[in-house]
Amino acid sequence: MIKLLIIGASGKMGKAVYAESKKYDNIEVVGGVDKYKDPEITYPLFDSLKDVNVDVDVIVDYSRPETLSDLLDFSTSKKVPAIICTTGFSDDQVAQIKEASKTVALFRSGNMSIGINVLNNILKQISNTLFENYDIEIIEKHHNQKVDAPSGTALLLGDTIREAIKGETEYVFGRSGNDCKRQKKEIGVHAIRGGSIVGEHEVIFAGASETIELKHTATSREVFAVGTMKAVLFMAGKETGLYNMDDVLNS
Amino acid sequence: MIKLLIIGASGKMGKAVYAESKKYDNIEVVGGVDKYKDPEITYPLFDSLKDVNVDVDVIVDYSRPETLSDLLDFSTSKKVPAIICTTGFSDDQVAQIKEASKTVALFRSGNMSIGINVLNNILKQISNTLFENYDIEIIEKHHNQKVDAPSGTALLLGDTIREAIKGETEYVFGRSGNDCKRQKKEIGVHAIRGGSIVGEHEVIFAGASETIELKHTATSREVFAVGTMKAVLFMAGKETGLYNMDDVLNS
Amino acid sequence: MIKLLIIGASGKMGKAVYAESKKYDNIEVVGGVDKYKDPEITYPLFDSLKDVNVDVDVIVDYSRPETLSDLLDFSTSKKVPAIICTTGFSDDQVAQIKEASKTVALFRSGNMSIGINVLNNILKQISNTLFENYDIEIIEKHHNQKVDAPSGTALLLGDTIREAIKGETEYVFGRSGNDCKRQKKEIGVHAIRGGSIVGEHEVIFAGASETIELKHTATSREVFAVGTMKAVLFMAGKETGLYNMDDVLNS
Amino acid sequence: MIKLLIIGASGKMGKAVYAESKKYDNIEVVGGVDKYKDPEITYPLFDSLKDVNVDVDVIVDYSRPETLSDLLDFSTSKKVPAIICTTGFSDDQVAQIKEASKTVALFRSGNMSIGINVLNNILKQISNTLFENYDIEIIEKHHNQKVDAPSGTALLLGDTIREAIKGETEYVFGRSGNDCKRQKKEIGVHAIRGGSIVGEHEVIFAGASETIELKHTATSREVFAVGTMKAVLFMAGKETGLYNMDDVLNS
Repeated sequence: MIKLLIIGASGKMGKAVYAESKKYDNIEVVGGVDKYKDPEITYPLFDSLKDVNVDVDVIVDYSRPETLSDLLDFSTSKKVPAIICTTGFSDDQVAQIKEASKTVALFRSGNMSIGINVLNNILKQISNTLFENYDIEIIEKHHNQKVDAPSGTALLLGDTIREAIKGETEYVFGRSGNDCKRQKKEIGVHAIRGGSIVGEHEVIFAGASETIELKHTATSREVFAVGTMKAVLFMAGKETGLYNMDDVLNS
Repeated sequence: MIKLLIIGASGKMGKAVYAESKKYDNIEVVGGVDKYKDPEITYPLFDSLKDVNVDVDVIVDYSRPETLSDLLDFSTSKKVPAIICTTGFSDDQVAQIKEASKTVALFRSGNMSIGINVLNNILKQISNTLFENYDIEIIEKHHNQKVDAPSGTALLLGDTIREAIKGETEYVFGRSGNDCKRQKKEIGVHAIRGGSIVGEHEVIFAGASETIELKHTATSREVFAVGTMKAVLFMAGKETGLYNMDDVLNS
Repeated sequence: MIKLLIIGASGKMGKAVYAESKKYDNIEVVGGVDKYKDPEITYPLFDSLKDVNVDVDVIVDYSRPETLSDLLDFSTSKKVPAIICTTGFSDDQVAQIKEASKTVALFRSGNMSIGINVLNNILKQISNTLFENYDIEIIEKHHNQKVDAPSGTALLLGDTIREAIKGETEYVFGRSGNDCKRQKKEIGVHAIRGGSIVGEHEVIFAGASETIELKHTATSREVFAVGTMKAVLFMAGKETGLYNMDDVLNS
Repeated sequence: MIKLLIIGASGKMGKAVYAESKKYDNIEVVGGVDKYKDPEITYPLFDSLKDVNVDVDVIVDYSRPETLSDLLDFSTSKKVPAIICTTGFSDDQVAQIKEASKTVALFRSGNMSIGINVLNNILKQISNTLFENYDIEIIEKHHNQKVDAPSGTALLLGDTIREAIKGETEYVFGRSGNDCKRQKKEIGVHAIRGGSIVGEHEVIFAGASETIELKHTATSREVFAVGTMKAVLFMAGKETGLYNMDDVLNS
């Protein structure tokens, strides 16, 4: 049985991770950390990591960058692998994670969906080969309450494409006018907003008389919980090292 | 046998109309008008409408706005119905067409594709009903040599939507930033450019947990020639009146 | 305030209707009917319609065909409009509903999603016009636990198409072999099954160098609850007559 | 300058290859082989390979399996690399090609589109990893004159998927009935037919709350000519070995 601790237990993702864990006979959530105590949570909830008094095999962290130093202290001192799904770390914090991973097994990813990671991997491989003869554009769709555009995941995919390509590239976030013929270096990123769309990301390679379209659709945040559980199974028992979703996919 | 005259005979659409006409036993191209004499054209070609010395039942015009007064003179004096596919007329010219249609049957459309006209008709009917609970966005895709964005057809569809809706609306031609939450009045129009894509237009109605997507794909300019032939059959023998593709579709 | 009674209150749709009702200031669920008493339900639950002792303005029925006679008795005797979302009625029961609608306002629909009804309406209008020059195919996608194929909604749309078309048509549910050239009369219906897909229905009109695609995507059963609430607002205060989603859409 | 010989010069693909070659300054078609002499062809046409009396650097073969022994004789004796795009060879002929490739550079592929080969490569890599948690389905669309279903390319992609997967798999070519719940081993292959669709192939990986869709669209047979030219540039000067489109893509 893998004993799991969830940091950010009362948040939407914390709850989704708990719900997903119930599908596994060999995973048990033994505790959570959250200042807010959601009344629906029935397992032990602690104010902070310092208060945790239960045995833990793996930590899942869906909280905030501020929690990092507590997390690394706990993880390194107790030799408990941690899956860090929180985003928005500073460069300094990223370096701390790398340093800590020499002592304990750590996992970090900007997007826990397996599908997005598969897609991202494909883009790493094919983007440079195709760039000479294909124009690349990204379309993403999200609900009408999303405040940022394009989505972080669209930029994650776009950055992967741009890093893979040896030539010059440039983002374009929309087109209008009578004189806007596409330049080769352009990578159009188009943010569609409407209704309650959970998340769609599509990369188009458009060439001479043919197109290749790679599309990912998420219909609930369950997709991130599913990927998190895969990471839990992968990290249980690991001793040191810094891992990401690629390692899980290739294991 | 319907005797057809093509104005703009040496142009791409003039040739496509001629090619399409060969599929009809009851339509014969008896002449063309074009200053440039394409060597591949085997039927009689005239410099201007004033030189045409053959019997004509229906005229198809794919030329330029400057040709209009010659066309209306010929059409009204000889009582020959004309299908005007040229675009870019001034308001004054549009009024002249309307006036002339009291004397002879005239047809005018901004897009000769049957599919686009079907889609446009649907939008007229459903846009206002759906607007309250659905967000509307348009995606169009064209080849990388197109100089304008969004496409004229995307704006044709968008204008239809906006005219149908009783509330306030506003075009948005792309989104980027950390503070661009969608406003209800927005109609996003997204111009994707790449490869040799002939033309795709998609209208998305995104609501609570459901979306309706209406999409038209053209794979060659043959689609405009097909629609033109339908108009030829419809206009042959008509005496007066101003018609458009809706009349053809509903006939 | 519209006082609502939900028959089948403990079922998935009963719960979805209750959740959706909370978004309306002028709708209140005053009771439910269900033999199974879901412990999460906080409003009064009755074993059968005969036990209902609260004032009701509109009934929503998501139960089973067997409940119909109780429902019609209650509805006609107390003059309470009913929205019948149950499916699988016999011809005889359909006739009973029609007869009862002379005495009280009744609503009946095979699919409560607004989007599907909009799509169905469009198909009524365009299918016959397009059939001569376009081939029609339907693709539907659902989760891997669905036992029937094609989906009832795919057949609902397909039947609408076939009723609209004046020529001969025939369903085809898949193609394989070296000698299966498409016949004009075929309407292909393709059932894709996989993962947790909630429901997608797409109708393709494929012509010469162009296609029109009309697609509906549902991402949760909330879509049916949304449509049900629209019907509640429409039916409140109606006295007699048999209504369906078209009446709601056109009101 | 690469001097090119086209076998099957009067066929549709022979002509498409010639048209594409004109876009390259460093490729010149110096001759063709075809029993039928298309009057539009202006370069030297020979009845058979035995009659060819011009210097050749690379051969492109779009003919029939019967031509193979002549082709291998010519190619091995004159040390001219050949790109074999003909399909339908017997196992024995495939072995002959392999044997001959010890003496001269040969290239063979079942589909010359770069896009399809990129897609096929991706499927080789991801299919087994995803199979455990994702259901795989293929949708292909072609024009209404195609006699076979599913398309050869759909089966090429499907076979790649099945070879990659370590578990049991089975093709299903359509679904209908009240008791056809999807079995894990099923790989649905759905053949849509309509209008003048040139060719679309889509592979869907449907998992828990997410789908990955990989789609290829061809809009003219130019795509095969484009891929052929890439192969010509790759093969020019090669001495021995058997190559395919993967080698071109990875070069």
